[in-house]
Amino acid sequence: MQARSARPHVVVIGGGFGGLEAVRALAKAPVDITLIDQHNYHLFQPLLYQVATAALSPAEVAWPLRHVLSRQKNVRVLMTRATGLDPVKRVVKTDAGPYSYDFAVVATGANHSYFGHPGWEATAPGLKTLADATDIRRRVLTAFERAETAKEKDRPALLTFVIVGGGPTGVEMAGAVVELARDALSRDFRHIDPKAARILLVEAGPRLLPALSAEMGAYSKRTLEKRGVEVLTDTLVTGCDAKGVTTRTGRIRAETVIWAAGIEASSLAAAVPGEHDRAGRVRVAGDMSVPGFANLFVVGDAAAALDHKGDPLPGIAPAAKQAGHYVGLTIAGRVSGKPSLSPFAYRHFGDLATIGRDAAVVRLGPLRLTGFIGWLFWSGAHVYFLIGVRNRVAVALDWAWSWLTRQRSVRLIIR
Amino acid sequence: MQARSARPHVVVIGGGFGGLEAVRALAKAPVDITLIDQHNYHLFQPLLYQVATAALSPAEVAWPLRHVLSRQKNVRVLMTRATGLDPVKRVVKTDAGPYSYDFAVVATGANHSYFGHPGWEATAPGLKTLADATDIRRRVLTAFERAETAKEKDRPALLTFVIVGGGPTGVEMAGAVVELARDALSRDFRHIDPKAARILLVEAGPRLLPALSAEMGAYSKRTLEKRGVEVLTDTLVTGCDAKGVTTRTGRIRAETVIWAAGIEASSLAAAVPGEHDRAGRVRVAGDMSVPGFANLFVVGDAAAALDHKGDPLPGIAPAAKQAGHYVGLTIAGRVSGKPSLSPFAYRHFGDLATIGRDAAVVRLGPLRLTGFIGWLFWSGAHVYFLIGVRNRVAVALDWAWSWLTRQRSVRLIIR
Repeated sequence: MQARSARPHVVVIGGGFGGLEAVRALAKAPVDITLIDQHNYHLFQPLLYQVATAALSPAEVAWPLRHVLSRQKNVRVLMTRATGLDPVKRVVKTDAGPYSYDFAVVATGANHSYFGHPGWEATAPGLKTLADATDIRRRVLTAFERAETAKEKDRPALLTFVIVGGGPTGVEMAGAVVELARDALSRDFRHIDPKAARILLVEAGPRLLPALSAEMGAYSKRTLEKRGVEVLTDTLVTGCDAKGVTTRTGRIRAETVIWAAGIEASSLAAAVPGEHDRAGRVRVAGDMSVPGFANLFVVGDAAAALDHKGDPLPGIAPAAKQAGHYVGLTIAGRVSGKPSLSPFAYRHFGDLATIGRDAAVVRLGPLRLTGFIGWLFWSGAHVYFLIGVRNRVAVALDWAWSWLTRQRSVRLIIR
Repeated sequence: MQARSARPHVVVIGGGFGGLEAVRALAKAPVDITLIDQHNYHLFQPLLYQVATAALSPAEVAWPLRHVLSRQKNVRVLMTRATGLDPVKRVVKTDAGPYSYDFAVVATGANHSYFGHPGWEATAPGLKTLADATDIRRRVLTAFERAETAKEKDRPALLTFVIVGGGPTGVEMAGAVVELARDALSRDFRHIDPKAARILLVEAGPRLLPALSAEMGAYSKRTLEKRGVEVLTDTLVTGCDAKGVTTRTGRIRAETVIWAAGIEASSLAAAVPGEHDRAGRVRVAGDMSVPGFANLFVVGDAAAALDHKGDPLPGIAPAAKQAGHYVGLTIAGRVSGKPSLSPFAYRHFGDLATIGRDAAVVRLGPLRLTGFIGWLFWSGAHVYFLIGVRNRVAVALDWAWSWLTRQRSVRLIIR
C-alpha cells in the first residue's frame, strides 16, 4: 500500500535513537514520512539490561512509536519488517509490500556478533530486544529455581552464570546478576544459597570497556571483583553449548550463558550498496549518505561513519541521535532547495558506565565521578533521557524502592 | 527430593488466594510446609484483565511466591507442576518427583470451559495466567497494527473484537477494550479510525453478571452500550475459528476473539477421589476436606463447597482466601490435638464490578454505589488488597496517570 501525494516521500527504517531523531527533525518539513519498524515500540536500549535482570518492567523502557509520534501529522508508522532495498529504483521492500521513496534513512542498528558461530545464539542469547530481555530474565531466574530442586551434583552448573563480552552491556549485566544473587534472592531459598552463585565475566581483550578509558576499565574490574564477579580478561571463547563455554584456558560448566560480545550490522545494511566494514556496517560520506546515492542515508550502529575530524563515531545513543537529527535537517534543507549543510560534526559530551548499586564512573569534560556520586549522576542522567513523565516517575520510583530494599520488582518467569 | 523431619508435612498445591492463605495460617504451627506452584508468582487475578488491555504491567499484579513467603521459615516453595495425587499413600506427584504428605491442600483453581470444544482455545484464548494476558494484549494491539496496513476489505474483521462470556471478566474486558479503542489509540493511526472498532460481548444467558444481582447486570449492560459495546445476550456461541464466531443467531466475522465463559476445575481436581460436579470441582465436606480422606482438603475454585447455611460458595477471591485460612487453622489445630473447628462459615462482604473509567457498581451491605463514586471505591479496594507497598504505589500512580491522560502505559507487542 502506498500513499500518494505531491510531497517528497521520506522512508525511515528503524525507530531507534537515530531513526526517531531523523523523523522528529522533519516535523515541520513539507514531506510525507513513513517510519518502518518491526516492533511497535521505541526502546531505550541503555536500560534494557535492567529488564533482563528483573529491575524494571518492559513498559518502563519502551514506548509505542505511534504514541510518541501521534502529534506529528506528516508521519505514519508501519509495524512491519523491511526485507530489502533497491537504491536505483528507490524502493524499500517490506513484509507489507514495497514502498518507493524520494529519501531513505536506514537506521536499523546492530546485533551482537557470534564471530561466525550463529549456532551459539540458541544457548547464549544476546540482549537487543524486549523479547531477548524477558527471555534472559526467565533463564536467570529459572536457573535458581532449578537449582533449588536439583540434585547436589547438578547445582554448581545451575548456579554458574557466564557473561561473554566486557563492553558496557557485559559489565552492567555482570554487576546486575551479582546483585540479584547476593541481595534480592539471598533469603528466598531453602536448599541453595544464592550468594554462592558464581558469576563470570569473560573478555577476549586485555581489559574491560575497551571503547572507554583505561581508568574506567580498571575501575569496573576492581568494583566487579569486590562484589564477587570473576573477571577473566585475555580469555577468548572458543566454544559454547547448553552445558557451558570453552575458552582458550579451559572449560567453564554453566547452564546460563549470556552473550554481550561483538557487533554486527543488522541484515538490512547488507542490502545497501557500496563499501561495508568487517562488521557489515555501511561506510558513509561526511553527510551520512551512501557514496553515489545522495538520497540514501545510514545512521547509528548500521553505519561506519567518521566525524568531521576523521574519528570513527562511537556506537552510543548520543551519536545515533545527533546523526539522525543531522540527516533529518539535511533532507529538510534539500527539499526546500537550501545549500547543503557542512559535514556532520559529532559532539561528544562524555562517558558514563555503571557497575550497579552505588557504583558508576562518569567522565564529562573536566568532571570525574565514581562510586555513589557517580551512580547518582548516572541514574539522574538516565531518568532525564527517558521519554515521557510517566516513565521517568515510574523508573525513579522503582530505583528508589530497589535502593532502599535491595529487592528487584520484576522477578517473573513467564513462558 | 524430600526433606525429612519429625514434624508433620503439609503440601499445598497452588499459590493463589486459597493456597497462600492456607500457608500463612500455618505460619506458627509446628509443621513443615511445601508450597508447589507451576509459576514462580502469586497472581492478583482480579486485575489480570488490565494486563491484557495494556493498562498495567505484569509485575504490578504478580509477586514472587518465594519473596512473599521469605520470612516464613517453615515453608519451602517449589516451582514445579503437580501431575497427580495418591490419597491412600498420601503422595503428591510432581515433575520434580513425588512428595509424601501428612496433610494436603489442593488449591489449583479453575480454567475457562470451552464446553467440549478444546480446539476453540487456539483462536479464542482465555485469561488465567500472565502469559495469557500478554498474549491477548499482543493479539488486540496487533489487530489494530494489521488493520493499518491491510486492504480496505480486510479491515472490518481486523477491527472487530468478540468477547465471549458475560461474567465479570467478560464485562471488564469489553469495557477495557472499548476504552483502548476510543481513547488511548484514537489519534495514533493514519489509515484507520480506531474509534470505528466494533466490540461485541456475547452471553449465552439472558443477562450480564449472572452471579450478581439483576440490577448490577442491567447497570453493566446499560453502561457498556452507552460506551459503544454491542451486548448480545441469549446468544449461544456454536462455533469458533480463526475468522470469527458462529452463534445461534448468525455469524460474526472477527480476527480477535477472547474467551471468558464457563468454568472448569483444573486438571489436578480430577485426581482427587470422591464426587465431582459438572465443572469437575470436588465436592467437599463442611470442613473443606474430601469425604473419606480427612487429611486432604480442597479450597477455592477447584472445590464445589457449601457454606454452613448450605449455599454454594461463590468463585471469588474472598471466598478462596477465607477457605484457605480456615483449612490452615484446621490443620494447625489437628496437629496440636485441639478439637475440630466448627464447619466453615463464609462471610460475604459484598459485590463489586467495574465496567471501566468512572463506572463501577458496589453493593456492600446497605451501601449502593455506582458511577464515578463506585469506581473510586472499586479502585481503592483493589489497591488495598494488592500485596506490598511498592505495587500499591505503582498501580495507584498508573491509574491516576491513565485517568488524567486517557492513555495506556503498556502498549507493547512482544512476541
